[in-house]
Amino acid sequence: MGAVRIARIAHPAGVAFVSIEGEGSDQVAAEISEHPFGTPEFTGRRWPLADTRLLAPILPTKVVCVGKNYADHAREMGGEAPADPVIFMKPSTTVVGPGAAIKLPRDSSRVDFEGELALVIGQPCRDVPAARAGGVILGYTIANDVTARDQQQHDGQWTRAKGHDTFCPLGPWIETQLDPADLDLKTTVDGEVKQDSSTAFLLHGVPELVEWISKVMTLLPGDVILTGTPAGVGQIVAGQTVSVSITGLGTLTNPVVNR
Amino acid sequence: MGAVRIARIAHPAGVAFVSIEGEGSDQVAAEISEHPFGTPEFTGRRWPLADTRLLAPILPTKVVCVGKNYADHAREMGGEAPADPVIFMKPSTTVVGPGAAIKLPRDSSRVDFEGELALVIGQPCRDVPAARAGGVILGYTIANDVTARDQQQHDGQWTRAKGHDTFCPLGPWIETQLDPADLDLKTTVDGEVKQDSSTAFLLHGVPELVEWISKVMTLLPGDVILTGTPAGVGQIVAGQTVSVSITGLGTLTNPVVNR
Repeated sequence: MGAVRIARIAHPAGVAFVSIEGEGSDQVAAEISEHPFGTPEFTGRRWPLADTRLLAPILPTKVVCVGKNYADHAREMGGEAPADPVIFMKPSTTVVGPGAAIKLPRDSSRVDFEGELALVIGQPCRDVPAARAGGVILGYTIANDVTARDQQQHDGQWTRAKGHDTFCPLGPWIETQLDPADLDLKTTVDGEVKQDSSTAFLLHGVPELVEWISKVMTLLPGDVILTGTPAGVGQIVAGQTVSVSITGLGTLTNPVVNR
Repeated sequence: MGAVRIARIAHPAGVAFVSIEGEGSDQVAAEISEHPFGTPEFTGRRWPLADTRLLAPILPTKVVCVGKNYADHAREMGGEAPADPVIFMKPSTTVVGPGAAIKLPRDSSRVDFEGELALVIGQPCRDVPAARAGGVILGYTIANDVTARDQQQHDGQWTRAKGHDTFCPLGPWIETQLDPADLDLKTTVDGEVKQDSSTAFLLHGVPELVEWISKVMTLLPGDVILTGTPAGVGQIVAGQTVSVSITGLGTLTNPVVNR
């Protein structure tokens, strides 16, 4: 298929994958009959996008993340970036959609946003050379790798700090045609710019990450890879709203509440 | 239901969850119609267990593991055990069943076995107090938390080292009625005893782990928690066979091959 904007929505009759057509207030959601992999078929049902609610665009079997993949962020964390990608995982139960609340755990006193470019895998794959990575990628979306910074420091391993329910907002949709090499990435909290960078500064680019991760584990359709966050991370507190915008992908906005 | 031994098998007509009845060579696999959660229904189809092949007893949405949960293992790793549980994850693509080959990655020169007691979650749950943990546990099985030790040390984060395909043998089945408090755990390589301990030495016991992990993330039916490994971990190489035995759970045996 050509360039498609894939979303998952709650519509008047249920939940569905859709293709979003048009722009602005005229956008229409065209229902995909099963799943968005391979060559999707359409049911013919359509809704004005404004009459639906966007959900996380995919429910991944795994979310694989990369740490310290921008030099300026590695420095603000107090070190140099490692030579090889360092991977970690967020449980799939962290995933929420656009507009869903990020819930601050009661046992953390410091939760940070981390705006990131994410890619979605389109087919089962293993040992994918970087040069062929494009062929296994369904498309791109935006992620917020929300992190309980105090727990990250306390544990050493990052799973708890990054694994709380609601700690992986994804969306607003998946763009199937996008060159990830140089996209502006901007994170704002209540409208104030906190991160302002470009994926051009990724130390390990998208193809290299697909090669590195697929050398370890089989990737399945819908699996999500978070590519890392640039400098500017900072705390979010209840009542605030955090937005991550990436060129060509729109904006992922989530309110912050106490659990 | 009462005490049930749940397995997943390949039988002459396909794959199914089954209840294993009887002992020794007279064991019979009774097919469960859907899944083993709640009150399973049976199809009436039955096979001699010897005519089937055991698979991993469950396909989890997530595998959550606990590091350094036996003091003697923490010491052999060169440190003290942390006061709080340290959790990490293995991707679900690591899971293989009894008899399946552990495949050594080409880019690791040191892969270790780690025999462990594992528990399987039986219902969606969050914020489970330790005193109620028994109510959310479907049962217990055996796991081998296979680890590329060189990659664990290289990365700092443990996801790559513990995340290779085939690095989470599970089985042979799930025992729904078992007191996990004091079970002998023994790991052998080609028949030679390498680990010989008891779950009585777990620093954080099963109920406490369920409380700790479910305070972070929603646990779903089939999710697996690995409780940690005692002292005695060591390398496995191609051609060897590693077995983990736990009282009441039988033995999980896997050959080791080069990828």
